[in-house]
Amino acid sequence: MEKFPGYKGRALLLLKKAKAKIGDRIQVLKEKETFEGLLIPRSEFDDHKHIVIKLSNGYNLGISVDQETEIKRIGKGERPTFSTPPLPEQNLTLPKVVIVSTGGTIASRVDYRTGGVRPALTASDLYSIVPELSDIAAIKAQILSSKLSENITSHDWYQMAKHIANQIELKATGVVVAHGTDTMGYTAAALSFALQNLPIPVILVGSQRSADRPSSDAAVNLIGAVKAAANAPFAEVAIAMHGTVSDDSIVFHRGVRVRKCHTSRRDAFKSINSEPLAKLEGNRIRMLKRNYRKRDTNRKLSLKPRFNDKVALIKFHPGADGKIISWYVDNGFKGIILEGTGLGHVSSKHFSVLRRAIEDKVLVGMTSQCIWGRVNMNVYNTGRELSKIGVISLGDMFPETALVKMMWVLGQTKDPEKAKVLLTQNVTEEFSDRTKFH
Amino acid sequence: MEKFPGYKGRALLLLKKAKAKIGDRIQVLKEKETFEGLLIPRSEFDDHKHIVIKLSNGYNLGISVDQETEIKRIGKGERPTFSTPPLPEQNLTLPKVVIVSTGGTIASRVDYRTGGVRPALTASDLYSIVPELSDIAAIKAQILSSKLSENITSHDWYQMAKHIANQIELKATGVVVAHGTDTMGYTAAALSFALQNLPIPVILVGSQRSADRPSSDAAVNLIGAVKAAANAPFAEVAIAMHGTVSDDSIVFHRGVRVRKCHTSRRDAFKSINSEPLAKLEGNRIRMLKRNYRKRDTNRKLSLKPRFNDKVALIKFHPGADGKIISWYVDNGFKGIILEGTGLGHVSSKHFSVLRRAIEDKVLVGMTSQCIWGRVNMNVYNTGRELSKIGVISLGDMFPETALVKMMWVLGQTKDPEKAKVLLTQNVTEEFSDRTKFH
Repeated sequence: MEKFPGYKGRALLLLKKAKAKIGDRIQVLKEKETFEGLLIPRSEFDDHKHIVIKLSNGYNLGISVDQETEIKRIGKGERPTFSTPPLPEQNLTLPKVVIVSTGGTIASRVDYRTGGVRPALTASDLYSIVPELSDIAAIKAQILSSKLSENITSHDWYQMAKHIANQIELKATGVVVAHGTDTMGYTAAALSFALQNLPIPVILVGSQRSADRPSSDAAVNLIGAVKAAANAPFAEVAIAMHGTVSDDSIVFHRGVRVRKCHTSRRDAFKSINSEPLAKLEGNRIRMLKRNYRKRDTNRKLSLKPRFNDKVALIKFHPGADGKIISWYVDNGFKGIILEGTGLGHVSSKHFSVLRRAIEDKVLVGMTSQCIWGRVNMNVYNTGRELSKIGVISLGDMFPETALVKMMWVLGQTKDPEKAKVLLTQNVTEEFSDRTKFH
Repeated sequence: MEKFPGYKGRALLLLKKAKAKIGDRIQVLKEKETFEGLLIPRSEFDDHKHIVIKLSNGYNLGISVDQETEIKRIGKGERPTFSTPPLPEQNLTLPKVVIVSTGGTIASRVDYRTGGVRPALTASDLYSIVPELSDIAAIKAQILSSKLSENITSHDWYQMAKHIANQIELKATGVVVAHGTDTMGYTAAALSFALQNLPIPVILVGSQRSADRPSSDAAVNLIGAVKAAANAPFAEVAIAMHGTVSDDSIVFHRGVRVRKCHTSRRDAFKSINSEPLAKLEGNRIRMLKRNYRKRDTNRKLSLKPRFNDKVALIKFHPGADGKIISWYVDNGFKGIILEGTGLGHVSSKHFSVLRRAIEDKVLVGMTSQCIWGRVNMNVYNTGRELSKIGVISLGDMFPETALVKMMWVLGQTKDPEKAKVLLTQNVTEEFSDRTKFH
C-alpha cells in the first residue's frame, strides 16, 4: 500500500521528514498557529500544497504548506473509535426489530488508514452509536452485504427480499434495511414489488453523512426507521429520511414513489406525485396518506423476488441517436423505458426503430424526464403516433420506478402480452388515479 | 383522410347517420339533456363509447352513447377563430421587439378538422390573441420554423442563433423566441452558449396549454416575455414562464439553469441550484440575482453557433449495461455525459469501458441524476477512482445543460485537451461557486 496516498511535492517531503503516516496524530505549525489532528489521505487529483487533518470535532481541515511550515508527529495512528458501552440488556418485551445492513454510508465508519469504508453494523456497534435504540426495540443486527449502493444489482434485491421474507417468518415486528442513499430509491421500488401483501413495515434508511461526523444524519434517521419498524400502523416498504434539513422530523416515503433529488442535503429524498406516506414527530407517527396497507401479522406475505436485467432506461434528448434502441434489441434486451420529453414524446426520427423493437416483442414504456406529472400520449400527434406504434403510456410513474417495475414484470413472465398487462396494472400504488380530461 | 378518426362502434354509427363530420357543430341528446359543440377527433386508443365535443367555453366533453342517444348535425364545420381586430397602428416610438416563432403550443392553434396543430404567428394573429402587446412594443413577428419541440435538433439551434444575431444587428431592443416547452430548456442552454456577450435580452417563451383554451397560459407568458425583451435590465438568454399556477407573476430563468420539471403545470419550469434571474410583477421587473449582464446596446455580440451531435447522455441505473458506452465509442461519438447516482457515481463494472473510452479521446463528464446539488468525486472511493480514470466532474451543472455544453464545446474545438479546459470553465454562469469542504 502507498504510504502517503495523494501527497506530493513539499507536503510529501514534510510528512516523510516527520515520519508521520496516514492515521497518525500530527501537529502542523504555521505562522505561529498550531493545528492538531489525524493525518488523512488525499485524492490523486487534489493539489500538492495542502496537508489534510481530521480535527477532534470530526471536521477535516486543509492546511497549505509553505517554506515556514513544520510538521510534528505526536502520536501513533489510532482509528478514532466510538466509546463502546457494555451491550445493554435486551428488553424482550419490546417490539423485535431486525436491522439488515447492505452497506452504504449509514452502515459504515471511515477507516482513516485507507480512506476506505468498513461496515460496522453489529448490535453492539449500533448501541454504541445510538444508545436510544435499546429503549425502542429489541434489536437484531445482521450484515447481509457490504456494498456501495452504486454497485447494487437486481441480484442484491433478490437476496434482500428473500432475507426479509425469512425475518417475517421468524416473527419480526418490523425490518429496517440500512442502505447507501445513491440507489436506495431503486431498491425501495424493487422491494415494494418483490414483497407483496406485507404483514409488517419494511423501512429502508440511509444517511447523507457518515456516523462519525458531528453533522451526521445517521442516528436520527436510524432512530426514526426503528420507531416505524416497531410501531408504525402501516405495513409497506418505505424510506425513512429527514423531512427537512433540521433534525425535527423524519418522513416515510412510499417505496415506489420516492427519489433522491439532491446530491448532499439531508432531506434529499422526495415523494414524487404524492405526499409522503407518514411523518414522525417526537414519538408520534402521523399518517399523511389515507389509504395504506395496515399492519396485520396474520397476513400472508407473497414473495416475488425475481427481476430481469435485460431492461434499459433511455433518456431522450435533442440529437439523441435512435440506433441505440436497435443495439438493445440486437443484444437481447426485453424491455425499454423511455424517458421522453414533456407529456411523453421523442423525436419522430425514433419512430421506425421503436416500431422494429416492438415488432421484435420488446416491451417499450414511456415516462417523462420532467419527473413530476404524468405522461399523456393523447394530447399531441407525437404521443398518438407513439401509442399507435405500441409504446405503452406509464401514467405518473417516474422513470426510475418504471424501470424497476419493468425489470420485475419481465422477471415474472416471458409472455409479452401478459407482461404488458402487468406493467399497466396498479400493483402497489405505483400509479395514482388518472385525472380524466381530454 | 379518415372521415371519423378514432370513432368506432355505436358512436361511429350515430355520427354516420347524422352525417356529421369532424369539426361540425353537433347536438347530442341524451337522457333529456342536450349538449352542443364541435365534433373533435379521438385517439385510436380511446374507448368506443364516447363522442367528444368541444364546448363553446373551450373545454372538451366526452359523452357516452347508449341506445337512447341521438345526434344532430346543426352546422357546417367551422374552425373557431379568434376575433381579428384591425391590425393596430404600430407605435414606432416603443421598443422594437422581434418575436421569432419556432413552433410548439404557444405558436399554434389546434386545427379541429385534423386534430393537428398549425403555426399562427403572424403579427396580426398575435395582436388578435393578445391586443395588449401593441402597448408594450412595436412587434415584428417572424416564423423561423414550425416544429414540435421534441423534433428540434442542434441544426435548429444553429439557425436560431444566426437569426437572432441578425435581429441584433438590425437593432432589435429585445428578441422573444416562441418555442415548444418539451425541449425549451435545452434550447435555452444552447442559445446561452451560442450567443455570448449579448447586448440585449433573448427571451424564450412557451405555453403549457394552447392559446384557444380558456385556461391557456400563452397570453400571460407572451406578455411577460415581450415586457422583458422591451424593458428588462438584463442582457441574457432566459425562459419566461409562470412562477406559480396563478397568473400573478412571470419568472425569468437563466438559460443554463432551467429545466422543465412537470409535464403539465403552468409553473413547470424551475431554476436548478439557483434562484431565478428575475421576476415580473405587474409592470415591474425585479432582479433576483445580483450578478447579471446588463443591457448595453454598444456591446458586441460574439456568435458561436456550432454544435457537435456526437455526444451521448447516459443515465446510470442498477443493472445498467456498460457495453453501451463502447457502442458510442465505436460509433464515433466524441463526448459522453454520464448521469450518475448521488455525488457522481456509477458501478465499478463500468470502470474498464470508461477507461477505454477516455483512452480513445472521448470526453466523459459526470453529472448527477439527483438533478439538484453538485457532484463531488472526492468523497467516496468510487468518485476518486472515476477521477483517476479521467472522468470529469461537472460541479453543479445538471445533466441537460451539461449535455448541451459538451455538444457546444465539441463544436468549438476538436482537440480533446482544449475541449476539457473549455468544458470545466465557467462560460456563462452554468457553474456556481464551489462550496469548499473535504
